[in-house]
Amino acid sequence: MTPRTTTLSRSGSHARTAQTTRARGTQKTSQTATKTQGQEESVRFAALGGLEEIGRNMMFFEYKDEIVVIDAGLQFPEEETPGIDYIIPNTTYLEGKKQNIKGIVITHGHYDHIGAIPYILDRLGNPPIYTTNLTKEIIMKRQEDFPNSPKPAFIMINGGEKVSFGNYFSATFFDVVHNIPEGIGMILHTPIGNVVHPGEFKFDYGHDGKPKGLDTWKWVGEQKIHTLMLDSTGSETPGYALSERIVEQELEKLFRTAEGRIIVGTFASLLDRLGEIIKIASKLGRKVAISGFSMKSNIEIAQRLGYLKDQKSTIIPIEEVKRHKDDKVLVLCTGAQGEPNASLMRIANGEHRYITVKPTDTIVLSSSVVPGNERSVQNLKDSLSRQGATIFHYKMLDIHSSGHAPQEELKMVMKLVKPKFFLPIHGYYFMRRRNAKLAQEELNLKPEYTILADNGIVVELRKNEVTLTKEQLPSYYVMVDGLGVGDVGEVVLRDRRTLAQEGMLVVIASLSKQNGRILKNPDIISRGFIYLKENQGLLDEVRKKIRSIVGRIPRHQPLDADYLKTIIRDQIGQFLYNKTKRRPMILPVIIEV
Amino acid sequence: MTPRTTTLSRSGSHARTAQTTRARGTQKTSQTATKTQGQEESVRFAALGGLEEIGRNMMFFEYKDEIVVIDAGLQFPEEETPGIDYIIPNTTYLEGKKQNIKGIVITHGHYDHIGAIPYILDRLGNPPIYTTNLTKEIIMKRQEDFPNSPKPAFIMINGGEKVSFGNYFSATFFDVVHNIPEGIGMILHTPIGNVVHPGEFKFDYGHDGKPKGLDTWKWVGEQKIHTLMLDSTGSETPGYALSERIVEQELEKLFRTAEGRIIVGTFASLLDRLGEIIKIASKLGRKVAISGFSMKSNIEIAQRLGYLKDQKSTIIPIEEVKRHKDDKVLVLCTGAQGEPNASLMRIANGEHRYITVKPTDTIVLSSSVVPGNERSVQNLKDSLSRQGATIFHYKMLDIHSSGHAPQEELKMVMKLVKPKFFLPIHGYYFMRRRNAKLAQEELNLKPEYTILADNGIVVELRKNEVTLTKEQLPSYYVMVDGLGVGDVGEVVLRDRRTLAQEGMLVVIASLSKQNGRILKNPDIISRGFIYLKENQGLLDEVRKKIRSIVGRIPRHQPLDADYLKTIIRDQIGQFLYNKTKRRPMILPVIIEV
Repeated sequence: MTPRTTTLSRSGSHARTAQTTRARGTQKTSQTATKTQGQEESVRFAALGGLEEIGRNMMFFEYKDEIVVIDAGLQFPEEETPGIDYIIPNTTYLEGKKQNIKGIVITHGHYDHIGAIPYILDRLGNPPIYTTNLTKEIIMKRQEDFPNSPKPAFIMINGGEKVSFGNYFSATFFDVVHNIPEGIGMILHTPIGNVVHPGEFKFDYGHDGKPKGLDTWKWVGEQKIHTLMLDSTGSETPGYALSERIVEQELEKLFRTAEGRIIVGTFASLLDRLGEIIKIASKLGRKVAISGFSMKSNIEIAQRLGYLKDQKSTIIPIEEVKRHKDDKVLVLCTGAQGEPNASLMRIANGEHRYITVKPTDTIVLSSSVVPGNERSVQNLKDSLSRQGATIFHYKMLDIHSSGHAPQEELKMVMKLVKPKFFLPIHGYYFMRRRNAKLAQEELNLKPEYTILADNGIVVELRKNEVTLTKEQLPSYYVMVDGLGVGDVGEVVLRDRRTLAQEGMLVVIASLSKQNGRILKNPDIISRGFIYLKENQGLLDEVRKKIRSIVGRIPRHQPLDADYLKTIIRDQIGQFLYNKTKRRPMILPVIIEV
Repeated sequence: MTPRTTTLSRSGSHARTAQTTRARGTQKTSQTATKTQGQEESVRFAALGGLEEIGRNMMFFEYKDEIVVIDAGLQFPEEETPGIDYIIPNTTYLEGKKQNIKGIVITHGHYDHIGAIPYILDRLGNPPIYTTNLTKEIIMKRQEDFPNSPKPAFIMINGGEKVSFGNYFSATFFDVVHNIPEGIGMILHTPIGNVVHPGEFKFDYGHDGKPKGLDTWKWVGEQKIHTLMLDSTGSETPGYALSERIVEQELEKLFRTAEGRIIVGTFASLLDRLGEIIKIASKLGRKVAISGFSMKSNIEIAQRLGYLKDQKSTIIPIEEVKRHKDDKVLVLCTGAQGEPNASLMRIANGEHRYITVKPTDTIVLSSSVVPGNERSVQNLKDSLSRQGATIFHYKMLDIHSSGHAPQEELKMVMKLVKPKFFLPIHGYYFMRRRNAKLAQEELNLKPEYTILADNGIVVELRKNEVTLTKEQLPSYYVMVDGLGVGDVGEVVLRDRRTLAQEGMLVVIASLSKQNGRILKNPDIISRGFIYLKENQGLLDEVRKKIRSIVGRIPRHQPLDADYLKTIIRDQIGQFLYNKTKRRPMILPVIIEV
């Protein structure tokens, strides 16, 4: 264990060491953790995702021939990645060392922590997955959609337990509160000291409004912590999290005023919230019908594991909703983000099999709006509102709380854990930097003791220093599109973006092999550029231009098809730009027959 | 003028009338405001944009052969309209009656109120534009980019003035506070009574925190108002607007702590804010350099009109920034939304000619994030943050205030104006409905007296009733893309969206005219689907499949090219879906030579 020294001497003496090491790092090219002359062995750390975005969380620790991985999540596609299903972490480095992987610890059951599992498990040699019961069940449910992914080997863990991953790494787990049950954090015991990875968490507040479970953090603080890692998602949010107790109270108040049906849209993954809502409904004598595949299967898992035991009779099948009076029903459904095929959207569009909006409905959107979904949510609200329903959303009332500790909670954990080094994880650079600043202020740490690593950057942890190396592991996006994993790259995406902007135009010139003369009027196909039927004149001009371009090619030399294509592309492109101020993708085809 | 009756008798007796009229409306097909048997003449109202979105505001009033238009704005493109530059109001109806248009009143100089002018002016027969000095200058500046648009004929107006538009309509204008100077509202005097259109406004608060200028609203309330129209953008926001005085104070506090340069990113259109920032800089002895074409030209206009008189020496050319000490400089620039080519983005990317980020810079984003821009703003903050700058944004401090009156301000105006009818404008349906609810509660109005009209729906205003008709004027999107106005329709957009999702594949089969045999191996071009170089095997399979499809066509009958294309599209589409679970657009081409 790392012996603790006073803050002053730490900051004073090691600041220089850290700088020296960083300078040395520039010459470093080794791919493995080898012992540097005169230097102690280091534990290597790198994130393969999650440090430059919110999502696709995956990181690992390496010492000699042993590796422990934490999480394997996915990221949802962005505007810049059209047509992509998911983005997953880049596991190239780990694939080359799969025999060394002692296990993957999964901190909780959200997709940004488990979603990549079916894609990477085989590539990593199917190492054991250390996780809690509920998380295991959620992972197993998802595996059903991936018949070719190997059967995962689970090792069940619980808060308070200690496991050993091999010769060098072991971990003591502890329970954390997130917005899905059975989240865990861990103290990873490494050869250079104890590293805390708390998973994702927020504080749990009792009915007295005071944070509960601070004992855990106090206990963690007594374990001589070398490095503390903390989720940065909430690092720009001042204050404390809105207590789930308040959310519960607000929801109950709201539900009590509803005179007709209540329809609540939220994330299927907010299992705690779902549980709360079911409890309140039960208390108010309302039956709960669940709509949405993912929500249904999550609640089934929760029930199977003994959650919601007392509410068994509350839950009814969605097809039975009509048998109950409106004021005795609550519908819990997916789609609060306006996702096209989710339940609430189908309800709004009149496409739901069992639920049609009534003017007496009270519709509650109990989730924040994920950036990028604003417009869909506006449309969803508009559509529900037009059908007369009364709508409540999180901006109007305290009916949603984030699962990520905001500033004051982060600071409290820092104070209790008192680490020597701080390594903010999860989130954009500016969020991690904010988190690092909090630690600098709260723990009086010099900036060199707060580490801002990017995805793929190898960090070396030694007893008395943590250094960023210049070693960059592959960490570029691996995109999942249909059956393809990683086969859609920047070229394909760039083409998709270009096609989306101004469409394309294929021009086909059939030339005679004998004399290079054009055999027939050029064919033109265009999509996404202009409406062809109304622009025949423009197309005729393009055809004429092509004939003239081909006509100008000297006949006495063999046809250079590539050259001809380039001229067509340039000249037709310029011509269309002058005419329309648009730049469709021009695709010339030369057919020689 | 409309005689006022008591609330009780109004609500009681006319509720039925309104319903009767609405029922009658279903049979109504007339396109003009003709006198219905036994019914008094009505003033017709319709919005051509702005009632189902935020943006492209345009509405008009019509009585007999006279029409008055209010605003002609644009809307920025959405995810659903890839490649589009702008969306403008549909003026089809007005184009057919251009000789009747007596004028266009422009309430203020924001693009969602002026942006469509260069596109529609000619189509509407270049009617006179009634507006204030500053708004005129902004419109004229923009006209420079549209040499083919006619020279607008302006009639200058000021708050307090009354103008007559013809025989039936006149207006008394009054000044309103927005976040651009010289915004105006109006009482439109019509044959059926006074209608208030206040433009867009918020309250101005004095240093004592009390709203100023309530006298105007009181005066409006004394004019016997038939119908009040109010902007609904802020109708879901509780409370009062954050006073610009507070924003000013917060900015000043922040600026005082900055030790190096200050770089402020905001909207070029927030002219009031720009003025405030320049004043504070001047007070703190900092020179202000402006970067960004639109911001520069807006400030030049403001200066020319006598705004910012005392700060003349404060403003310096951007190329002179380096001549001043860092703590004596403030850079005011566009691009706080992360727009690719705006100044702040170029600064962040190291592409700005005069400004490079320094770790001592304080960068302030003084604007809210427009929905859809979240990701770009994250990237902007990340990039600036990586270069060491300290960043402040509106979520961290009170350094931005919306220009739209929130609930309590809307309610105060309702109370002061005391209209007989309420017609919420500007905003999505759920926002307008919320606004209508506020009026129902605040003014004790029955729902029939609060009118929710959609774009294009003709509303008939009579002395004692306002009714929604079934008459729907064309109000579908008119899209501007390059030089084309309205030539990009749903088909082209759908193709763009499809191309963006999975790309496309053109397969070209060259067949012999004589015997229908395939002449050469089919050509395949694909973009945005898969990376062709790495998927030659798949392409070979596609070629084989096409040969086999063509081979199966009976030789003894003439080739049905359309039929062949359909089979190729279906079978190749299905084949690729089975292989990849993607559905690229398949474009078969049959060349007969």
